[in-house]
Parts: sequence; C-alpha cells; structure tokens
Amino acid sequence: MGAPKPIDHLHAVILAGGSGSRFWPLSRELGPKQLLSVFGGVSLITRAVQRVTDFCDLGSLHVVTNERLLDELRNHLKSQAGLKDLEIDYLAEPVPRNTAPAIALTAAHLLRYDPHAVMIVLPSDHLLEDGGVWSDTVTVAGSLAAEGYLVTIGLKPAGPETAYGYIRAGEAIEGERVGEAQGRLAAAFTEKPDLETARLFLERGDYLWNSGMLVARADVVLEQLEAAGRAAKTEESAHGERIVETARWLASLPKTEWTADEPRERFAGLPSVPFDKAALEVSERVAVVPADMEWSDVGSLLSLEKLAPPDERGNVRVGRVVDVDSRDVVAYSQDRLIATLGLDDVLVVDTPDATLVAKKDRAQDVRLVVEALKAVNAPEVVAARSSLRPWGSWTLLMKADDFQIKSIDVLPGHRLSLQSHQHRSEHWIVIEGVARVQRNDDAIELSANESIYLPAGAVHRLENAGDVPLKVIEVAVGEYIGEDDIVRYQDEYGR
Amino acid sequence: MGAPKPIDHLHAVILAGGSGSRFWPLSRELGPKQLLSVFGGVSLITRAVQRVTDFCDLGSLHVVTNERLLDELRNHLKSQAGLKDLEIDYLAEPVPRNTAPAIALTAAHLLRYDPHAVMIVLPSDHLLEDGGVWSDTVTVAGSLAAEGYLVTIGLKPAGPETAYGYIRAGEAIEGERVGEAQGRLAAAFTEKPDLETARLFLERGDYLWNSGMLVARADVVLEQLEAAGRAAKTEESAHGERIVETARWLASLPKTEWTADEPRERFAGLPSVPFDKAALEVSERVAVVPADMEWSDVGSLLSLEKLAPPDERGNVRVGRVVDVDSRDVVAYSQDRLIATLGLDDVLVVDTPDATLVAKKDRAQDVRLVVEALKAVNAPEVVAARSSLRPWGSWTLLMKADDFQIKSIDVLPGHRLSLQSHQHRSEHWIVIEGVARVQRNDDAIELSANESIYLPAGAVHRLENAGDVPLKVIEVAVGEYIGEDDIVRYQDEYGR
Repeated sequence: MGAPKPIDHLHAVILAGGSGSRFWPLSRELGPKQLLSVFGGVSLITRAVQRVTDFCDLGSLHVVTNERLLDELRNHLKSQAGLKDLEIDYLAEPVPRNTAPAIALTAAHLLRYDPHAVMIVLPSDHLLEDGGVWSDTVTVAGSLAAEGYLVTIGLKPAGPETAYGYIRAGEAIEGERVGEAQGRLAAAFTEKPDLETARLFLERGDYLWNSGMLVARADVVLEQLEAAGRAAKTEESAHGERIVETARWLASLPKTEWTADEPRERFAGLPSVPFDKAALEVSERVAVVPADMEWSDVGSLLSLEKLAPPDERGNVRVGRVVDVDSRDVVAYSQDRLIATLGLDDVLVVDTPDATLVAKKDRAQDVRLVVEALKAVNAPEVVAARSSLRPWGSWTLLMKADDFQIKSIDVLPGHRLSLQSHQHRSEHWIVIEGVARVQRNDDAIELSANESIYLPAGAVHRLENAGDVPLKVIEVAVGEYIGEDDIVRYQDEYGR
Repeated sequence: MGAPKPIDHLHAVILAGGSGSRFWPLSRELGPKQLLSVFGGVSLITRAVQRVTDFCDLGSLHVVTNERLLDELRNHLKSQAGLKDLEIDYLAEPVPRNTAPAIALTAAHLLRYDPHAVMIVLPSDHLLEDGGVWSDTVTVAGSLAAEGYLVTIGLKPAGPETAYGYIRAGEAIEGERVGEAQGRLAAAFTEKPDLETARLFLERGDYLWNSGMLVARADVVLEQLEAAGRAAKTEESAHGERIVETARWLASLPKTEWTADEPRERFAGLPSVPFDKAALEVSERVAVVPADMEWSDVGSLLSLEKLAPPDERGNVRVGRVVDVDSRDVVAYSQDRLIATLGLDDVLVVDTPDATLVAKKDRAQDVRLVVEALKAVNAPEVVAARSSLRPWGSWTLLMKADDFQIKSIDVLPGHRLSLQSHQHRSEHWIVIEGVARVQRNDDAIELSANESIYLPAGAVHRLENAGDVPLKVIEVAVGEYIGEDDIVRYQDEYGR
C-alpha cells in the first residue's frame, strides 16, 4: 500500500453535467445527484474532488458541467470545508453530448497549455471506497497512461449485477506494480449482461465492473478517438475524427465563448455517444487495473436501502418513518412524517415539496415521472429547495405569487454579496446570532429577535458579525419574486 | 315534498366528540373529521348544523363534544357564514363513553328546561344529501317521536355494504305521511353483515342502512333506556337505569361543572355503549322512516375516491398528483406534489406535515397507524396545521424550537382578541390588505409590505382595517413558543 503522491502532469477531470433525473425528487435540475449529501454527509462531487486532490498539482483540477449548473456547482464546492481555497477550472459543455465529446473537448483544452497532460476522468456522482487500494490503483493507472494506454479501472464484482457494464481482464502488462495493483490488457467489454451471463462472469473471476473511470494521456485520448473513427468498426465509433476536430476548434477559443452560437451549434452537431463506445471498445491500447474496492454508481433511488439496516419485515426506514405491517418497503424522509401501512415492495421518497411513491421494481423508471412532470411544467423538477453557498446556505420555506419566506444561515466570518432587487422588498428577522446589515449608506447591527426592512432598490448586504452561525428569516414581498431579480455590486467569492 | 317547517319543541343535538383517527393524516385530535371541508367546501359539521336549523327554534341547537375540542369547535362554527350568529349550546362530555351515555346526558339536560323536548340526534361527520326528501323524513319522524316512538332514519341501501348496520322495516305505522315519507315499525337490527347476507338484504328490499340518526322525545329516551335496563335482555342494554340516573345527576349541575372531578368520575364509571345497543335493539317502541337519499358515514380514507372520476387505469387523483403506470390508486394531495409510479391498489394521502401511504384494503386500519404514532409521541397526531377562527384563519408554516412562522388571514371587519404573550415576541409583516395594530397604548396602521414588532409582554391586537382580506406573516421568536402562552384581555367572540 503506497501513500498518495502527485503524478506528473496529472489533471483531474470531474464529469459533473449529469441531470440525475433518476434520483428525483431528491435530485432536481438545479440540484442534481452529484450535489446530494444523502450518502455519508458530504456530497458525491465533494468526495470525488477529495479523491484526486492528493494526486494533482494545484491548478490541475477541472470540472466539466453545463452552463446552467455552473453557478450552483461553483457555490457548492466553495462551501465545502477543505475545498474552498482550491482553484478549479470550470468547463461548460455547450450542450450535453455524452462523454466522448466531453472528454475530447477537455483533452483538447488541456493540450493547449500542457502537451504532456495525463487525465484522470471521474464521474461526480458515484460512491467509491477511498483508501490505500485506490491510491495504488491510481498510481499504476497513471504509469500505464504515461506509456500510452487508455486505462480503465475495473472493480471486483460484488455480485451478478445486471445494470453494470463488465470488462474482461486479459494478460498482465509488464510494468509498475504497487501493492496488489497491476495493469492488464482489457480483452472485452460487455454492457448490462443478463443474469445468467452475469453469474458466469462472476464464476470465471476475470470479469470486472466498468466503473467509468479513465486514466489516459490527453494526446492519446484524441489520437485513439481519431483512429477509432478511421477504422470505423462500429457505428458508435465512426465519428471520432469529427469529434476530435470539433473539440480542437472549440478549445482554440476562450472557454467563455464555448457557449456562443457557433460553437454551440457545432458541438450540438456531434453524435451523443459515450467514450466507451467511441474509443475503448474498439481501441487496441486499452488497459484495465483491477481493484477490490466498494463501489456503486448510485444508479437509482433503490440505493437508499443501503442507508439503514432492514427491520424484521425487510423494511428500510430512513428519517421520520412509522410503519404498520409493511414488507420490503424502502421509505426515506428528509424531515416530514411518513406513515406506511400494509405495503409490499414499495419505495417512498419524501422531500419538503414533493413525494414519490413507486413500486420498487420500477425505481429505474423515475425518469418517466420526471418527463411527465416536465410536460406539465412542474417547478419541482427544476428548483432545489435549499442550496449551499460559499457563505452558508438558504432554504425556501414557502413561495406564493407575491411573497416568499426563506431561512438564511450565514457562517461566522462570512457575508453575502452587496446586492439590490428591483421588484421585491425584504424583511429580515434575526433568529440566532448577530448580523451586521449594510443598507445603502447605513451599517446596522442586529441581535436575535431584531428585524430590519430593506425596500426594493436598496443596496444591501448581510454579514455574520458574531462567532456563531447566524440564522435569519427573510420575508420577501413584491409583485415579482424570481431569483433572477438581483444586481450584485461586490462579492467576496468572485461570483 | 314539503318545505321545512319548525317542529314544536324540537332540539337538534349534534354529536361532535369523534376523534376521527380513521381519517389521519387529514384529521387530527384537534382537527377531527367533522371539521374537514374535504367533501364539498364546507365542513361536515357545518352541513350537519345547516341541515337542522330550519326545523329548530333559536336556542335549541346543541353540540355535544369533549372538553378538549370545545374551543376548536366553537371557533370553527363561529367562522362559518350563516352560522356565526347562531346561539349554540355546547355540552362537554366529562369523558367519551359512546352514544348511550351522551344521548342520555343530553336528554336529561334538555328536560331541565323543556319537559316536552323532542331531540333530533345527528352525527357531525357524515355526508347526507339534503333537500325535499330530508325535509319530509324529518317531519314524519318528528310526528312519530311526539307519539312516543324512538324514531330512526333508515336509508335505502345503494349496495350490499358490509361495513354498515341494517334495520329491517316492519309494518307501516298509521299516522302522518309527507311525500314518500311514512313511518314503519323497526323489526330487526343487524350490524355489519357478511357479503352474502348483505346481498340478501338488498334483494329483499325491506332492509335499510342504519344512519345513526335518531328522533325522539327526551323523556322517552330516558324511559326506554331505563326499561331496557330493567328487562336486561342483553349485556349491552343492562345498564340503562344506571346511565339514566347518572345522566340526571349530572344534568342537575351547571354544565360547566360536568368536567369537575366527581361528575367525571361518575360518568367514567358508565359502560361505553352505543345507544343502538342500549335501547334501540331491545325496545318495542322503535320506528324507522325509510328515506331514499345519498348518505355515507365517510368511514375511511377510501371515501376520498368519490372526489374525482377515475382515470382510464382506475386511479383517482385529487390535487397535484402525477401518475405513471399505476392502477386503482387513490392519491389525495392538499398542496404538495405527489408522483406515483407503477403502483397497484395503493392509497396516498398527503398533508403539509405528514403523508400516509397504505394498501387500499388496509384503509380501515389507519387507527393502527395513529396508535403507533401516539406511542412515539408524534405531534402530527394532535395538532392541526391550520385552524378556522371567528375572525378568519391561521396556518402554521414552520415550527422550530425557538421560532415559528404562521400565516394569519383576517376577514374584513374582524379583529383578533386583545392579548399578550409572556415568552415570545412577534414580528408581523403585512402581505395583503390593511392592518390596524394596537400595541400597548399605540394604534398603528400598516399596509402591504409594512411590518411591526410586538415584544414579549406587549398587549396587542390585530385588526383588518380595510374591506378586503388581510394577510399577515407572523414570525414568533422566543424560548417558548407554545399556543398556551397567551393572556386574553378582550375578545369580540366571547372566548
């Protein structure tokens, strides 16, 4: 077991564009799965970032997402202890086009300023056991990548899972070996086998779960995509040259221009294809490093059943859930009370503003619910009910046409941006802590049970002036209450 | 069809002590089924009261309930248009002891000031089609009651219901006939028959649903209870004399003393037995007036399925409910979003603070859920989330240890009581309308988007000073937030 050590030219690339519609109502378009802290206290993306910081130099952490999520992700990661001072390079894909175009674009971008760049590409919304095995695995993968391989990380299967892809590990590759970790040639890829096949894979012992993690030199990524395109063995790998060409062209522009009309149009013209299909399955230079770690893609709400031990009737209950006579129910509540009675194999997921009740074997079809909700313009698909900020967090308690109520928590030593609103006035009531409020040219200090009025148009700022958390209830009143009615004059966090 | 006309000495007695635990989470201990306006806009008890006001003289309306519900009921009925000026005699049973003791106590109470009193006893939590048939039925029942009969109202069965009691109608009684309504002797009572028996009853045509409604002279009620006790044909009818004796003794005290220690103890010593068992099933002087009206005892949450037509897969959805691929689901939401996916025969009932998910065939066992919740002291069993008041209504939006947020709606021309709180301060923010606030010796007028602070100890009052509804958000802050921290100095509504 080796301690993590930096790998030369290693760039971590966190793919964080997923909408997480399979996790609704826990996830929302503006609060996707990677931002959920359901599993183990911190968000999945926070753990993904923590997983790679030891291997990378400062300035070589890249988060790939979409335009819409950019602010939310930035605020979220800046709010995480240990990450807030990290310099992160945010990349917004012009439109979502699956992983092959996204990885190609990132590779081309990296090559602009580091011709020797090695990428470690990680999903932002998976669960993975960290520790020594992970460290050894990455070290070996890094050295194979330097030699020109596209290196995948293959996990020792914990069961005959039919929802995952499998990689067959072929002959061992001579080279660096750290602890148990040693590279092998990737001999075959199989997507979602049936149960019988999955059992066979398990028995054989040389099949590994495809974790979707990749380590490779940026130049090799582009070269192998192009080679796959030229060979065009499959429909899905036939567009490699066009993908690389478009990626290189976009990367030649400042990244702030990637979402302009022409780049967006050209990127949108690419096929929506995963990197596995576009390159890994057809390339000859693919390695796999087998690793024995706990891993899950947290692919459906049924993952919630790992959060608590089942009761004597097989029910898993998380939060304020009371049951009478149910069997094999999974019920998850954030803060409200859920009662279940006489149910079998039902999944209940409750959030402050929406509840999902589903037959368990339909958990993978939650996206159909999200589609149905989109069809009726349900705001619960889009908006998150609470949101982390570099200065703390806010939670929406109530929203009506002409007013809304929020709870605002500000960390000691922090303050919100200096801002004003055109259409809404705000009433702030301090519940706990001490606030310093700037209102136009005045500075006012408020303790618990004191309040202040901020008329529409007033330039104002809220600051925690004490050394304990500050809690404020905000009642906003006005003919228009939208979050976009804000002018920011100055911000500590460069937003 | 006759128009309603007053019946001499008729006293309406509305039984409103039910806890409605079969309707949780819609009903709560302090917001039982009779107060729900789920069915048709106004509450079940409001409709029960409206049903009898035409037949009764002023001052002859009595509502029997328990001590705990008294204030809530009074506030509720005073808030109902058309009922607020009605003088209602509220009677609090010392302890719940089912209908025989409650009806006996009321009869003894009525006889103290009206020796010729005729009672029409109505449940407060049933659904009943009003109109001409009802009017004719009551008129005939009233005249039979005057002749000394215990008169039940029997409804033409709409199906072979196994959850109801049945009355077999015997030979016709000579006497008043109004429209289709004519009295018959009640030949037999059958509780909850099996399905085969219920079908047989339906075929025979002479069996009627027992609605639990009773019309009888107060003196006959006591006399027949005593006679049943003397004859003691069944265990459940053997205590009539003791019930009547205790009832007469309690009625000799001012009703405000019924809940004192000795009356409570004596009343608690009575058997908990329904009037049907204690008198009707054994008395020889029982009549039934058959009536063809829509009626339901709204006995379980499955009654909600009458609120909307089923969709093409048999799902009944009320409120913001989106479904994918479910069958025969009943889903009811008050304001939150509910999504159902792939369910069969499931009942979902959602309220702002609690959700019930049950297999439909277990709907009658919701009381088990309530018991389980009581065992863990869940506040959601007791507290109503919103409450009607003579001046308007309030809704609890959020409750924490050291603060709570309420929405308060005040009707034009109304004002709350003059009050103060020892432990909490209040911040009021006007959202809509114009408020006049008394704070100690000051009177302050506030428009929308204006606020005021009421420190703990301040004597204050909120009044709607405009001619449109007034909406105020109240943020209460303090180390103790309980509703019982209130001193009332003056109240428009005699509370």
